[in-house]
Amino acid sequence: MILIKGNEVAEKVLAECKRDIAELSTLGKKPGLAVVLIGDDPASRAYVRSKDKKCHDLGLHSVKLELPADTTQADLLAVIAKLNADSTIHGILVQSPPPKHIDEAAIVLAIDPRKDVDGFHPVNVAKLALEDRSGFVPCTPAGCQRLLMDAGVETSGANVVVLGRSMIVGKPMALLLMAKGQGGDATVTVAHSRTKNLAEVTRHADIIIAAIGRPHFLKADMVREGAVVIDVGINRVDDPTTEKGYKIVGDVAFDEVAPKCKAITPVPGGVGPMTIAMLMANTIKACKQL
Amino acid sequence: MILIKGNEVAEKVLAECKRDIAELSTLGKKPGLAVVLIGDDPASRAYVRSKDKKCHDLGLHSVKLELPADTTQADLLAVIAKLNADSTIHGILVQSPPPKHIDEAAIVLAIDPRKDVDGFHPVNVAKLALEDRSGFVPCTPAGCQRLLMDAGVETSGANVVVLGRSMIVGKPMALLLMAKGQGGDATVTVAHSRTKNLAEVTRHADIIIAAIGRPHFLKADMVREGAVVIDVGINRVDDPTTEKGYKIVGDVAFDEVAPKCKAITPVPGGVGPMTIAMLMANTIKACKQL
Repeated sequence: MILIKGNEVAEKVLAECKRDIAELSTLGKKPGLAVVLIGDDPASRAYVRSKDKKCHDLGLHSVKLELPADTTQADLLAVIAKLNADSTIHGILVQSPPPKHIDEAAIVLAIDPRKDVDGFHPVNVAKLALEDRSGFVPCTPAGCQRLLMDAGVETSGANVVVLGRSMIVGKPMALLLMAKGQGGDATVTVAHSRTKNLAEVTRHADIIIAAIGRPHFLKADMVREGAVVIDVGINRVDDPTTEKGYKIVGDVAFDEVAPKCKAITPVPGGVGPMTIAMLMANTIKACKQL
Repeated sequence: MILIKGNEVAEKVLAECKRDIAELSTLGKKPGLAVVLIGDDPASRAYVRSKDKKCHDLGLHSVKLELPADTTQADLLAVIAKLNADSTIHGILVQSPPPKHIDEAAIVLAIDPRKDVDGFHPVNVAKLALEDRSGFVPCTPAGCQRLLMDAGVETSGANVVVLGRSMIVGKPMALLLMAKGQGGDATVTVAHSRTKNLAEVTRHADIIIAAIGRPHFLKADMVREGAVVIDVGINRVDDPTTEKGYKIVGDVAFDEVAPKCKAITPVPGGVGPMTIAMLMANTIKACKQL
């Protein structure tokens, strides 16, 4: 069994980013990422901090905007408009979830699609479906695809089961893997809460992408011998033995599934570090294209 | 075995359209469809004629624009701009395929998404992926879904295999059937030319949508007992016994597949009439929303 080390692949992606940044700097360009945080949710705050840190490590221009929880929709839209017009900023990200009074869809629409490094703007959603490579692919599925490619997993003709049909992971993942070309050409099945005989569906998979947000959901009897499993789950479960009182586990019952796998990602240290690395890569792509 | 009669379901859809048109007329509104034909391909010409006729039958305002084969991209864009601005026109369709010198993607982009009754504009592609019902779904997959619903075929939790990954049928069909809600919630697999062991994949399907454009491709040994088969294929094959010297056949080897099926569409008289009926329905939807 091969443990697909997301940390190591992420380092490779970041090394590529560094090369690109150096090349851009010879052209007098410096990629810039703006991350907007509304309110003070501790998890969101931690994500934003780690994105900001990664930018600094790489030598990217980073702007961290922390807005109070009672920021109005209009004020937030004004912030976005300013970032859209700011030529030092190439990527704009509004940390999700925003407070309940904010219309998130309207915020996504307000971001210039050319700066939408999250890949959630309809223009980028359509480009993914239309296999137009100029668009931005959401960071997590892009990271999963890169993990597969880096581990030498052949996707062409492979039976892939994507667990989950969200617009953040499941659907873009499916579109990415069924697209023509390298890292694609897979026979993709999207399974979800309404799927019947799920274990039968997943047992047919050469590759399983688990993105349902339920701790230890994928069990050994749902996976066939020799499968490749990518675990997108980041679930917080109580654990009184830890200092924080909780630990982070994936959607996969790793201990029982791993022995059956040809390759599998751990949690943490699998998909997680890839998501942030792909965000950096998307920001650099935006800088190149703008 | 139930023969799903597309002609009859299309008549139902058209009857609903008539009711809607009558209702709109009390508001002083009349839906209008403009169909643009470039060149004189006989098949395209026949399609355009039948769309125009259907509009007249229904009492829709219909504009048929026949442009010479050497129409420039700029001239075509000017025609589209005029139709976008024309308040009597709610749906715009450029008959595909245009001559080779025309950039079809740019033409699609030029159509006002609110008048894009073909559902090919990126705004509508994204709306379909995002499950935003205000968008336009491409007519053929929308018609297939309606056939399933009308025949009382439960899609929720059903294993659906879509054969083909085009943006005209395969991908929108998959997105439609995996979406939440009535006529959706299916476990969808998209299979295509790179799929390995295709017969094994299709034999797991409760519902097969065949949209690959290869005559009689789906054989009996690829279909399980009790499956529902929707045949999107419209293939012209030589037939010296007919007056025209050819006949139209589907992607399904109907004679051998039908006996195994719970329900199946014929070709012709299956999906074909639905496509045009859904075009009418989309035009009325556009009129209501504009």
